[in-house]
Amino acid sequence: MTLNSIIYILFHLLVPALDTFSNTLAVAGDPDIIYDFASPQNYSVNGSFFTYTDLRGVLDQIPLSFKATKVTLVEFPALNGQSISYAIFQYPGGSINPPHIHPRAAELLFLVSGSLQVGFVDTKRTLYTQNLKPGDVFIFPKGLIHYQYNPQSVSATAISAFGSANAGTVSIPLSIFSTGIDDVILAKAFKTDTYTVKKIRSGLNKS
Amino acid sequence: MTLNSIIYILFHLLVPALDTFSNTLAVAGDPDIIYDFASPQNYSVNGSFFTYTDLRGVLDQIPLSFKATKVTLVEFPALNGQSISYAIFQYPGGSINPPHIHPRAAELLFLVSGSLQVGFVDTKRTLYTQNLKPGDVFIFPKGLIHYQYNPQSVSATAISAFGSANAGTVSIPLSIFSTGIDDVILAKAFKTDTYTVKKIRSGLNKS
Amino acid sequence: MTLNSIIYILFHLLVPALDTFSNTLAVAGDPDIIYDFASPQNYSVNGSFFTYTDLRGVLDQIPLSFKATKVTLVEFPALNGQSISYAIFQYPGGSINPPHIHPRAAELLFLVSGSLQVGFVDTKRTLYTQNLKPGDVFIFPKGLIHYQYNPQSVSATAISAFGSANAGTVSIPLSIFSTGIDDVILAKAFKTDTYTVKKIRSGLNKS
Amino acid sequence: MTLNSIIYILFHLLVPALDTFSNTLAVAGDPDIIYDFASPQNYSVNGSFFTYTDLRGVLDQIPLSFKATKVTLVEFPALNGQSISYAIFQYPGGSINPPHIHPRAAELLFLVSGSLQVGFVDTKRTLYTQNLKPGDVFIFPKGLIHYQYNPQSVSATAISAFGSANAGTVSIPLSIFSTGIDDVILAKAFKTDTYTVKKIRSGLNKS
Amino acid sequence: MTLNSIIYILFHLLVPALDTFSNTLAVAGDPDIIYDFASPQNYSVNGSFFTYTDLRGVLDQIPLSFKATKVTLVEFPALNGQSISYAIFQYPGGSINPPHIHPRAAELLFLVSGSLQVGFVDTKRTLYTQNLKPGDVFIFPKGLIHYQYNPQSVSATAISAFGSANAGTVSIPLSIFSTGIDDVILAKAFKTDTYTVKKIRSGLNKS
Amino acid sequence: MTLNSIIYILFHLLVPALDTFSNTLAVAGDPDIIYDFASPQNYSVNGSFFTYTDLRGVLDQIPLSFKATKVTLVEFPALNGQSISYAIFQYPGGSINPPHIHPRAAELLFLVSGSLQVGFVDTKRTLYTQNLKPGDVFIFPKGLIHYQYNPQSVSATAISAFGSANAGTVSIPLSIFSTGIDDVILAKAFKTDTYTVKKIRSGLNKS
Repeated sequence: MTLNSIIYILFHLLVPALDTFSNTLAVAGDPDIIYDFASPQNYSVNGSFFTYTDLRGVLDQIPLSFKATKVTLVEFPALNGQSISYAIFQYPGGSINPPHIHPRAAELLFLVSGSLQVGFVDTKRTLYTQNLKPGDVFIFPKGLIHYQYNPQSVSATAISAFGSANAGTVSIPLSIFSTGIDDVILAKAFKTDTYTVKKIRSGLNKS
Repeated sequence: MTLNSIIYILFHLLVPALDTFSNTLAVAGDPDIIYDFASPQNYSVNGSFFTYTDLRGVLDQIPLSFKATKVTLVEFPALNGQSISYAIFQYPGGSINPPHIHPRAAELLFLVSGSLQVGFVDTKRTLYTQNLKPGDVFIFPKGLIHYQYNPQSVSATAISAFGSANAGTVSIPLSIFSTGIDDVILAKAFKTDTYTVKKIRSGLNKS
Repeated sequence: MTLNSIIYILFHLLVPALDTFSNTLAVAGDPDIIYDFASPQNYSVNGSFFTYTDLRGVLDQIPLSFKATKVTLVEFPALNGQSISYAIFQYPGGSINPPHIHPRAAELLFLVSGSLQVGFVDTKRTLYTQNLKPGDVFIFPKGLIHYQYNPQSVSATAISAFGSANAGTVSIPLSIFSTGIDDVILAKAFKTDTYTVKKIRSGLNKS
Repeated sequence: MTLNSIIYILFHLLVPALDTFSNTLAVAGDPDIIYDFASPQNYSVNGSFFTYTDLRGVLDQIPLSFKATKVTLVEFPALNGQSISYAIFQYPGGSINPPHIHPRAAELLFLVSGSLQVGFVDTKRTLYTQNLKPGDVFIFPKGLIHYQYNPQSVSATAISAFGSANAGTVSIPLSIFSTGIDDVILAKAFKTDTYTVKKIRSGLNKS
Repeated sequence: MTLNSIIYILFHLLVPALDTFSNTLAVAGDPDIIYDFASPQNYSVNGSFFTYTDLRGVLDQIPLSFKATKVTLVEFPALNGQSISYAIFQYPGGSINPPHIHPRAAELLFLVSGSLQVGFVDTKRTLYTQNLKPGDVFIFPKGLIHYQYNPQSVSATAISAFGSANAGTVSIPLSIFSTGIDDVILAKAFKTDTYTVKKIRSGLNKS
Repeated sequence: MTLNSIIYILFHLLVPALDTFSNTLAVAGDPDIIYDFASPQNYSVNGSFFTYTDLRGVLDQIPLSFKATKVTLVEFPALNGQSISYAIFQYPGGSINPPHIHPRAAELLFLVSGSLQVGFVDTKRTLYTQNLKPGDVFIFPKGLIHYQYNPQSVSATAISAFGSANAGTVSIPLSIFSTGIDDVILAKAFKTDTYTVKKIRSGLNKS
């Protein structure tokens, strides 16, 4: 047994263990960190560690359906502990970012081009809507259901910032109808019949 | 009555009001407060201020449909700044607490009597479900969609605690279908037709 | 030396190291987490991980003296990062939950049955007391000395929620008189003689 | 126009204004502030507002018994929102700062002169003690019972810093025995007789 | 004295009082709010309150020198309590956003067009630099000195998000050399002569 | 290959890995911890762990130039999670603590002996200054540029407390002029010539 093979074994033992550990401990949260930044190896990072380049060219391609490109601590680990992240949204004509919730942050949307109908519902069940023009900024408060819809035929593009490095997204249609919740439960919840539940699920799963 | 006397009266009206206000507000938020508690008038509260009595007898009455009785800072102002609140849930046989989200806290449910099927969906869209027996405790993590369903014919009762004095509740069915979001938007979001949207809304509004 | 023995050695080196590490790092705190939940292995948990079943039947047994049954992150690891926990309290007739402090959370007590005299002292040394009836809810603000006493002969039962997954408990009598603090120091602190200190300690240690 | 009508007008002007204010501001606490500092009138404060001069000369006077001189947001309003405060402690020979708890911060004590025996008890009821020499720094973790005792005949002086602008102090002897908690409750809590309770209270109240 | 004049007096008494009060209490902080959002009048706001329109057209005008257009809680009150804000940066060829610090948030810069040389210095005084291309995202960690420089002749445009509704900006050149700090102090601080200090100040004040 | 050599290899693989890990995860922050304290091995620490003795005698030695002696979580690990730290400052006659920023805490300075001219600049670029006498306390708000200068010939001594276990220090002169930021960038930033930039750098590097 060679040193290399031992190191190899060690590495493959260690990495999942640390990964598990990371899940247990990384409950740190988005509060202020007590170091300047969090890096895999403080002594060796350079400017590249703080740079994310995978958005280059994203805006040049118009997708066929609504597309969200995220820059969170998952894609860009240097965001860990910095309480901030981005997403680029592209809405072909008539497309929608369906109702969803970010459990860990408010969203500040800046409409780069095109038009958007946006809305959110607060905990008193009041709906707030607005028709946005290019350059407009809209705040979706933390933890509330919201959506964006492009009512025009021309594409729309927006960038959104979130006050967490990992805001999270809970899509209402998919979380409700495509995760295996029992049809009877959903029919009762929406005061409808299981036929309707099945129909909606079927439509969502097709795409 | 002179201007000076009016100013004098104003001042003596204003100062205690602001002082009261200061006691109420300077503790807001769900982070640690910098006073022991928040009261309308620190100098005059007694033990009653810290007591909530409107739950007396609530458990003695079995409601006809699912019923939530909340004890938050709205009903019980002494909770302001203490990061904790309660709700009592009563589920007649076959009833449901439909999918919802609490934007500002996790929920820790204790099943007092009866049976419950509970579930939540995380941001990776994994569904976690459990059948609870009396005495069981279930944690619904912060900001995620969850529900409870009583599959038996006998009533079930639960008490839930929330790590915020004002956790808030976003009911998915009502927030989505009963707040005036445009039918076309909802049909696109759920990849269905406006007939189905109208049908669900109609069912929800009947009750 | 076999692969298994190497793995064995690795494991026993790794586990205490991680354990030590956990003590150092798990200073995360009770703020919002940046993941949905914290689990030992995200990929493998199911609904059971979020369920605590050891309270089943607890309320059926009447203890001989005051008994607290806790549900914190120690007993129920899924609470980690969720800022919430429970305790069940059972007070036989005439028994007391002696003065204590929770360093990390307020306590919201719900009296299920029986009677309780409750009280707390704020930092201005004002005592707030109340006689509770079944169904009453009482808030003990964060970090203050408080107690509950059952003045009746019939048993009382309460459930309390805490706005931390690990509120902690500092019992005043035991922390002061049963931890080895020097008699001279305690006599000076309580402005009494060492005879009285020894007498109290002796009484507390008997039980 | 009568006084009553003026008060009536005032009230109806004031209440909505305060209500508005409540919605805007209700977010306080010891966490990071969102302004540089909090002042009564931003436009008029100068360097004096950020200066506290009432400690001048305090160290020159040796008190007859243990003396704590605090610099919190109560004495020094500029500390509001800055999460920091001080106390100067003077311990004549043989004097004690009796067991107490700070509900809202850890304490970092720096011994300027003399000797101190210090101790604290954690939530597992382990006592940690140390004999301090001039220049020593000791950390009393947040929310735990602790004390300092000067075992020498020469005076000791210390300065302590707290990680809150209003850490609060709960003196165990005075909070327990001098706030009107019922003798029977205390006798049960300390597993002693009411004679002993009365004796301790009497001793504490004499001083 | 008419009712109107009384109301007028009241208003002018009340407004500065509340303003003062606001400065004292608005130590709010960027932690989670316990309401959905903060508004002047919850009952009357509509979608416009959550919309900021003053950025429309900003990107169409190329300024003559570096220009920052901010969207913070000052310009857009709906951001209060939502922990997020924006700034649009326009850098004509050869222009610089000089070294500065944001006391209350990290900055996540997205380069829309042109080139930027960016850099920051951590508390160990390591300089991290990067040459950014359009589409690149760079994170400036919280509380550290950083700058951006457009080394090309063509204009550059960036949008930055901040994890606070009021991140604040401390410009190093202007804060140091244009606020009245004594020449002798600055000469000592920079280990230079007062001639050099005066020369720098003079250059900065010219523009 | 012996067991010892394997353990040796393991140890040297493991330690940097954990160190790396620590950098990644220790984003915990300064919020409340959910344990009493953080220690390398909870079961074995005693009073010494909570004691820092390296300040003994520091005040007895008068340094030749300004000297800061820190007590943060780096020097004193027991501070981890307790949101508090100290620094001792010694200012020989005419010396300066040059303009700097603490990214993670406010500073509360207590002047033990001598005189100090202190100042800070807020985000509106207002300079606040004060001449301190022994016993004076001055608060430097979080994240703002500040300095202290001893204008007398006699030495001055101060102790400062910080509301973080790791406040961090960003020295303006050294961070700007001694970290390799390009001369052209600095000349543009300070609206001066590269000759002046080089001159300042040279002066700073000499010492």
